Amino acid sequence: MTENRQIIIDSLPKGRLEPGNYALRTVEAPVPGDGEVLCRTLAITIGAGQRAGLQGSASYAGAPRAGMVMGGTAVARVEASNDGGAPVGSLVVCPAGWQDYSVHQAAKVRIVDERGGSGGDPAHHLGVYGTNGLTAYFGLFDVGEPREGQTVLVSAAAGSVGHLVGQMAKIAGCRVVGVAGGEAKCRLLTEELGFDAAVDYKSPNFRLEFKEALPERIDIYFDNTGGEVLGGALRRMKVGGRIVCCGVVSQYDTSNPAPGPRGVPGLLINFRVRMEGFLVFDYAKRYPEAWGRMREWVEAGKLVPKQDVFEGLEKAPEAFVDLLAGGNVGTRIVRVAS
Amino acid sequence: MTENRQIIIDSLPKGRLEPGNYALRTVEAPVPGDGEVLCRTLAITIGAGQRAGLQGSASYAGAPRAGMVMGGTAVARVEASNDGGAPVGSLVVCPAGWQDYSVHQAAKVRIVDERGGSGGDPAHHLGVYGTNGLTAYFGLFDVGEPREGQTVLVSAAAGSVGHLVGQMAKIAGCRVVGVAGGEAKCRLLTEELGFDAAVDYKSPNFRLEFKEALPERIDIYFDNTGGEVLGGALRRMKVGGRIVCCGVVSQYDTSNPAPGPRGVPGLLINFRVRMEGFLVFDYAKRYPEAWGRMREWVEAGKLVPKQDVFEGLEKAPEAFVDLLAGGNVGTRIVRVAS
Repeated sequence: MTENRQIIIDSLPKGRLEPGNYALRTVEAPVPGDGEVLCRTLAITIGAGQRAGLQGSASYAGAPRAGMVMGGTAVARVEASNDGGAPVGSLVVCPAGWQDYSVHQAAKVRIVDERGGSGGDPAHHLGVYGTNGLTAYFGLFDVGEPREGQTVLVSAAAGSVGHLVGQMAKIAGCRVVGVAGGEAKCRLLTEELGFDAAVDYKSPNFRLEFKEALPERIDIYFDNTGGEVLGGALRRMKVGGRIVCCGVVSQYDTSNPAPGPRGVPGLLINFRVRMEGFLVFDYAKRYPEAWGRMREWVEAGKLVPKQDVFEGLEKAPEAFVDLLAGGNVGTRIVRVAS
Repeated sequence: MTENRQIIIDSLPKGRLEPGNYALRTVEAPVPGDGEVLCRTLAITIGAGQRAGLQGSASYAGAPRAGMVMGGTAVARVEASNDGGAPVGSLVVCPAGWQDYSVHQAAKVRIVDERGGSGGDPAHHLGVYGTNGLTAYFGLFDVGEPREGQTVLVSAAAGSVGHLVGQMAKIAGCRVVGVAGGEAKCRLLTEELGFDAAVDYKSPNFRLEFKEALPERIDIYFDNTGGEVLGGALRRMKVGGRIVCCGVVSQYDTSNPAPGPRGVPGLLINFRVRMEGFLVFDYAKRYPEAWGRMREWVEAGKLVPKQDVFEGLEKAPEAFVDLLAGGNVGTRIVRVAS
């Protein structure tokens, strides 16, 4: 028998998520049926949006319940196969969840190349070539519609999506301002990732610094957080500006989300602003376009994907709690096996 | 000397607007200079958006102050002219304010035809052919983009803009649901103006009735109110729906507007909703297109413009306060002279 470690939801969080909301158990690995494959998890990615599902209310992330294996996307290796389309040894991306082994219909896993992009790390399929990169790409280019010389503001700018959005906006010829928590992240944005300015939302002078970083106001606000940064951005939008609603990380880690920002809808009218939500899955048919362009940018050194790694499946709850507290830089990865 | 009655802002309102915030004074009528015309006010229109300016904060309506003549758009007759382009006797639309006489540069008044549309009433230049009709037209067709068979929800549906939006959405082949205050308004919408359903927001069963009136959810919400109706609409949008942000009447008559609705931006993401503010003035170059189409609809009996008239300049403050309390059906007009 092959052992399969699983991290299950022990209880839904009341208030902030804690590692104690999860429990580790060991069961027997599943056996693939007709047309199925057995996948060995190599690495899992964790995104803040998964916290929304744990609120028990409507969310695109579905409705996890106590007793279930925690969901999550992984890169994995096919260890047993009953389908010629995904032979043993294939590297795949699949919704494995937080466990060592999972079984999927072969048609539902996506076979990916070994290189994992130019970085040579399969985990890039969970970052720049995964949901994060695709979200940045379609949110910025299709919803935001940047034009050269415009000002783009990004919140959670050192985060999994934000750090890619900012770099893509620079590729589009925009002036890019990031909002992030803490001086270290802000330095990373301006010194390593090419942002024109970065503002620390934890600074006591945040409001003033925010205003000073945006002397020409905002054409596009790529909103990963909602909350106070959204409220501040609404007051500094340019006439005809766009707000790309991508995530609401400021409101995920609670059972009682705050009301919406003042200024909705009043300031949307005054500044003729378009505020638009999107989900990357709606763009699935165009993923190859995005993968092609992102790979070019990565290989040319124009787009630098960052990863932030925890080692070991048992660290996943801690990695998630830390992410919600703003601990990550780039895509949070939990390595499970090599 | 010609007497000019003026209604001035005596004090900016704290809390709700009251007639006592205004005072009547009589001064000498102004004399037009070079290139100017003297206009005799015939009728004024009052819109809820004017209340926003009295909050003293940023608003498209500008910043009125105590001691100023209250602003407002009027139809007027040119009584003296120093410009051949606008001869004595011309019927014009101009920003007269709440007074009998005003002077304007001739180039800044708009000469309109005597018929005032098929209704034969010059005051229609303040309603269906004025800002209200143009706002309904460009907001619905350009921002909302209705398609046949879609469901359109309108708030303040018996109001100056709303009653035209709903009828235009019917012309576009949509199913139209209105939200209005009181049974009488709701009956007007369904029995006279062709709405498919109307929901009374003052009903104790409002939430249930709102839900039942929208079994197929909402493609387009034309939002004149913000507040609770916006909150309710956000929860019932269809994937890919549009929210046209036109006004925030629920938040105008106060010095302390409420926070924005829960669900912004979270529900915008889940339902991939586009929420967009607009100001009709941005469409000025296309007004002739709208006038042409609206006149056709009015003359064909497909678009029925409603007016709601107070007689006498001195009634303007009362007419405004009543409007803010939801008293009007259609465009509120104050007749000053004939």
